[in-house]
Amino acid sequence: MAEVEIGLGKSARRAFGLDDISIVPKRRTRDADCVDISWEIDAFRFDLPLIASAMDSVVSPASAIAIGELGGVAALHLEGVWTRYEDPTPLLAEIAALPADQVVRRMQEIYAAPVDTGLVVDRIRQLNEAGVVSCAAVTPQRASSLAKYLLDAELDLLVIQGTVMSAEHVSKDDQEPLNLKTFVRELDLPVIVGGCGSYQAALHLMRTGAAGVLVGIGAGGAARVDQALGIGSPQATAIADVKSARMRHLDETGVYVHVIADGGMASAGAMAKAIACGADAVMIGSPLAAAVDAPGGGRHWGIQAAHGELPRGSVIDVGTRGTLEEVLVGPSHDDLGRLNLFGALRRSMANAGFETLKELQKADLVVAPRAAARP
Amino acid sequence: MAEVEIGLGKSARRAFGLDDISIVPKRRTRDADCVDISWEIDAFRFDLPLIASAMDSVVSPASAIAIGELGGVAALHLEGVWTRYEDPTPLLAEIAALPADQVVRRMQEIYAAPVDTGLVVDRIRQLNEAGVVSCAAVTPQRASSLAKYLLDAELDLLVIQGTVMSAEHVSKDDQEPLNLKTFVRELDLPVIVGGCGSYQAALHLMRTGAAGVLVGIGAGGAARVDQALGIGSPQATAIADVKSARMRHLDETGVYVHVIADGGMASAGAMAKAIACGADAVMIGSPLAAAVDAPGGGRHWGIQAAHGELPRGSVIDVGTRGTLEEVLVGPSHDDLGRLNLFGALRRSMANAGFETLKELQKADLVVAPRAAARP
Amino acid sequence: MAEVEIGLGKSARRAFGLDDISIVPKRRTRDADCVDISWEIDAFRFDLPLIASAMDSVVSPASAIAIGELGGVAALHLEGVWTRYEDPTPLLAEIAALPADQVVRRMQEIYAAPVDTGLVVDRIRQLNEAGVVSCAAVTPQRASSLAKYLLDAELDLLVIQGTVMSAEHVSKDDQEPLNLKTFVRELDLPVIVGGCGSYQAALHLMRTGAAGVLVGIGAGGAARVDQALGIGSPQATAIADVKSARMRHLDETGVYVHVIADGGMASAGAMAKAIACGADAVMIGSPLAAAVDAPGGGRHWGIQAAHGELPRGSVIDVGTRGTLEEVLVGPSHDDLGRLNLFGALRRSMANAGFETLKELQKADLVVAPRAAARP
Amino acid sequence: MAEVEIGLGKSARRAFGLDDISIVPKRRTRDADCVDISWEIDAFRFDLPLIASAMDSVVSPASAIAIGELGGVAALHLEGVWTRYEDPTPLLAEIAALPADQVVRRMQEIYAAPVDTGLVVDRIRQLNEAGVVSCAAVTPQRASSLAKYLLDAELDLLVIQGTVMSAEHVSKDDQEPLNLKTFVRELDLPVIVGGCGSYQAALHLMRTGAAGVLVGIGAGGAARVDQALGIGSPQATAIADVKSARMRHLDETGVYVHVIADGGMASAGAMAKAIACGADAVMIGSPLAAAVDAPGGGRHWGIQAAHGELPRGSVIDVGTRGTLEEVLVGPSHDDLGRLNLFGALRRSMANAGFETLKELQKADLVVAPRAAARP
Repeated sequence: MAEVEIGLGKSARRAFGLDDISIVPKRRTRDADCVDISWEIDAFRFDLPLIASAMDSVVSPASAIAIGELGGVAALHLEGVWTRYEDPTPLLAEIAALPADQVVRRMQEIYAAPVDTGLVVDRIRQLNEAGVVSCAAVTPQRASSLAKYLLDAELDLLVIQGTVMSAEHVSKDDQEPLNLKTFVRELDLPVIVGGCGSYQAALHLMRTGAAGVLVGIGAGGAARVDQALGIGSPQATAIADVKSARMRHLDETGVYVHVIADGGMASAGAMAKAIACGADAVMIGSPLAAAVDAPGGGRHWGIQAAHGELPRGSVIDVGTRGTLEEVLVGPSHDDLGRLNLFGALRRSMANAGFETLKELQKADLVVAPRAAARP
Repeated sequence: MAEVEIGLGKSARRAFGLDDISIVPKRRTRDADCVDISWEIDAFRFDLPLIASAMDSVVSPASAIAIGELGGVAALHLEGVWTRYEDPTPLLAEIAALPADQVVRRMQEIYAAPVDTGLVVDRIRQLNEAGVVSCAAVTPQRASSLAKYLLDAELDLLVIQGTVMSAEHVSKDDQEPLNLKTFVRELDLPVIVGGCGSYQAALHLMRTGAAGVLVGIGAGGAARVDQALGIGSPQATAIADVKSARMRHLDETGVYVHVIADGGMASAGAMAKAIACGADAVMIGSPLAAAVDAPGGGRHWGIQAAHGELPRGSVIDVGTRGTLEEVLVGPSHDDLGRLNLFGALRRSMANAGFETLKELQKADLVVAPRAAARP
Repeated sequence: MAEVEIGLGKSARRAFGLDDISIVPKRRTRDADCVDISWEIDAFRFDLPLIASAMDSVVSPASAIAIGELGGVAALHLEGVWTRYEDPTPLLAEIAALPADQVVRRMQEIYAAPVDTGLVVDRIRQLNEAGVVSCAAVTPQRASSLAKYLLDAELDLLVIQGTVMSAEHVSKDDQEPLNLKTFVRELDLPVIVGGCGSYQAALHLMRTGAAGVLVGIGAGGAARVDQALGIGSPQATAIADVKSARMRHLDETGVYVHVIADGGMASAGAMAKAIACGADAVMIGSPLAAAVDAPGGGRHWGIQAAHGELPRGSVIDVGTRGTLEEVLVGPSHDDLGRLNLFGALRRSMANAGFETLKELQKADLVVAPRAAARP
Repeated sequence: MAEVEIGLGKSARRAFGLDDISIVPKRRTRDADCVDISWEIDAFRFDLPLIASAMDSVVSPASAIAIGELGGVAALHLEGVWTRYEDPTPLLAEIAALPADQVVRRMQEIYAAPVDTGLVVDRIRQLNEAGVVSCAAVTPQRASSLAKYLLDAELDLLVIQGTVMSAEHVSKDDQEPLNLKTFVRELDLPVIVGGCGSYQAALHLMRTGAAGVLVGIGAGGAARVDQALGIGSPQATAIADVKSARMRHLDETGVYVHVIADGGMASAGAMAKAIACGADAVMIGSPLAAAVDAPGGGRHWGIQAAHGELPRGSVIDVGTRGTLEEVLVGPSHDDLGRLNLFGALRRSMANAGFETLKELQKADLVVAPRAAARP
């Protein structure tokens, strides 16, 4: 690890973001249809290595079904509007229309309504009935209390997600924090946990028995973790570190835990770079929030932005362009690369000469003083 | 120390700002209410590790009392408007309302009025009567002449502050500069001195008997020291260096001198990073100047900006948002992280797994090519 | 090669763009008329080391003739509007006039028309009849099928160009990709191929028998390869690497293959830097698209931007200033350095003390933290 | 020298600009009136270490006299408007008033008028009669032909200045370039030559017998040398290198040649940094062009911007603020540090603890990732 002395007796490790790197093409190019971008985790196979972020601006039951039918999978947040309201669509429309300086206060009211466990079950069943892989997200705080309903509803894939996720959590004596290791091992359901940003944190999460870990601490377009909390983990370095943990865990246990890059990938180029650093799949939000058939109506936020006392993460305006289908698999009519993201990933691999995602994970990289600032 | 050759025969040390670094979370997260952010200096204990900057846009007697009641402490500048005028509120309103190109000239007039020692005593007594820790700031030039009044008024905590502060100062023969060592040792009052930015300067300041040193040379939002004077000391490096001086001084004398990061922390993230570099507490200005009940009325300046011949530091418009209470301890309705700063510090420590400020001082760091430019 | 560890077990090479470097003047300055910037490739000699980019906004038969008469050479794209339409000028005018959000969709329609091989022959003959060196570009996909017509029309110089070009390409079994080695060796015509961005890729392209290779992967002003595909190769590093391949190939075979820097040079300064890194000539687009007599009418795009499913590269507005003559050889009335580009290259070499392009290729360089951001 | 590999077989030296560095204060601060910023070169002593740039927007006979009376010296360009026109004031007013897109073309006409040697003599005499040190600039092309008139008019100090200046220049056989060594040695007048940016170039210029060398290749606010020519020499590195040449030359010959930093110093901070890198004095333009009594009327340009075929350097709008007196020695009513530049230099030295310019030349420096981008 490259250490830099930042002051007398204080060192820091040099870390890199996806913007700092680029993929080096191999000697041999390929046709785009000679490229395989499919992804398998647990018993599930997906045409696209994609989990749509568990954000109310991205995933509704309807958009989850659409994304599933297009080859990816979407995580419905079980503590968002769809489990607090029978029909949240008027509220989503209200959030989309409010002036920027009023929206957080209104969201705090909207998200103060209680989670209805009946709706939790209904929403999951709705996904299952549509024939897509059902995937849903909960916070560690609610995981235990909701577990029963997830099993009842026959959820396929669970995401347990907090800003920073650790395998061990310190709580006050009179509180019972989630014992992640027990919970994951006892739950008859593949679980993806995160986010994390380091080798050690990832290794401990892997040892809970998780099927996958999310890499990313506030890396998304609507996140402001560096400013708000000072915590950070530039994504290229974080993904490479967690890949290293995956290798050690595989060596120790024979179990391959998937590494899912979460956030900060606004373009297909960034997705390709995340995989080149070692990711098996990507979790993206803002590019999908901008679809005309995404629930956010041009606005994008996570449930953290509705926190009653300390909203974290921003409410950002992403506009709308193209359908979810156009965003994911095209065709694109956009010269800025914001549509047909997975066609572009395929094209990236074709041009750079990689046949599979596993091959792309071994790509050579360059780091440039301002790679992303280039035209 | 990492030296870089900048030209033949001329080297420079590589230094880092708070924007260049991020905190690495530990393996174990915590609940936010399992985090202790209290701070003790001399006989005083504060719920928040905060000194509000001695700037007229931030600290009036009223805002000092409010900040004290919220758990911090505020330094009233004894050479600002409150000791030059019986009732400066119309003047503060005038400064807030003037067009940008006229404000410096008017401030030069306003600050040309003499300091009234009767008001010095009154203002301090007002703080004491309110039951908060009374804290006030003077420049080294006036420290001696005002000392008597500070003692008379029973000031709790004195800040002696200049742009750059040294333990030894060269003056013309016919002038008597402040002998900081004698002054601090003879004054029956804990003294905080600064700013400084290096190991040597801090060590000499500590040896004067100061209770604390301010780290920061023009680091604040209203400062322009790099442009104006070419002098600089990026904060992450400066704080780590001064922490190192604190360790040596403790080893030599058994006395723990507090390190207070001063300026350049516009967010809770920056505050957390300053502590992670070694600070015991933070002195902040602009985030407080933006409170609706701060005296600046949306404008922010230091007394240096009113210098008669060489105004230094800018008059900046910071707008207004939230009350002092909301700025410091929330609740926040702002998705940009500018409110509930100490709730966010607590959250940062919880997520990153640190129980106390002393633990946070030992945090691992990363340095990233453009950490702060990330979303 | 300077390797940087970007994460555990993952390294990247540090690479530099033209913006990161500057040329160091030699000890002896020269008069501008004591500088020779002429360039010879195969049997052709050019007053200017210039190939105009094969983009419809830059090269029409008319502008190709003008550029040829001014001393350079222009590559007409044989899959652009001039071989799809008898008279494309109304379509070019339409593209120039459309609102930005409609232009890609319309271009997709326009470029869906078939390529007419009769027009291919006619356009080339038109250039030959005008007495300039005829130069045209094709994609690797069409090279074989168009070869016959190129020879019929007696083309002088062929460019085979794709986003990333490799000597070996993997296709599906039932498809026949271009065998570049056979094709180039059998074609009785000097061929320039690219783009590429690395030593290995360039060496393999050189071994096909090409007369020149283009260096640049999406480096141009209208390219967005880093965002769209994540692939990149900062130009200063790429050119130096390919120069190294040129030396090895020359050593192995006795054949000097020309290195042509392609894209990302919006100023004469960037052109000079590209040559200083090792380029023999430059391929530029956007500075020429801004000529009043360029076909783009103030708009600039490549055929990739009209791709039916995945438009890559942007349609950008470059405005218009000066004639092609003024852009290339002056006189200039522009204080921003956008006219008289080759007069400025001459002046650069005069000031820096280089007599020929070969000498400039050996220039000393500095790399500066933000060279190009300087005024 | 720190070398970086930028590509296979191509290295570059790492270089730094003034924005990249900051001055580290010493242990002991000083009063501002215990600081000496006077400068002596040849037989002349100046209160301020300042030569005003030989640009028509900065130096007229009137402003030269004003600057001289304020303690500096100003170089009148003998190939600018004041030697081409008996009364150029209407032309200066016209240049100041023209729309930006017409100004270069008009300037090309204005500067096409011939230089009148009678006016050359008159202008110099006017300075001498006013009792200030007379200083004037010529290009190397005209130095020989104007020499007689400079001596006739009893010029005190000559500046010979080109974009890049070398001691040896290559010309066509039928032309006679300036033999700088012969010229300088034979001329009975102290000569300052430049610009240069490297150890070798500076050493050769020193060996011509020059009294001073200008360091800076297109570093000024109105220069665009990096974009236009690709040539560059970041100032901190260049000044340190030339200082090193000064030491060697002093060691070899016993003669101290002054190093004058030229351009790129828009603030007192940058001036202080230039001296800290080794400069004896500074040549500044744009901060003076913004004086209400400067001849540019809010616009700023050099004669290079009026070149008939290849204008280099921009015409920039600098606005107006304060008198020349306020810009140089205050008092200031500007909170952005653009007035009282030498008061600020004095304050910088006082705060940082340096008594003389020679002491400041030995200052410790830090290099920060983005020193100047800090607030």
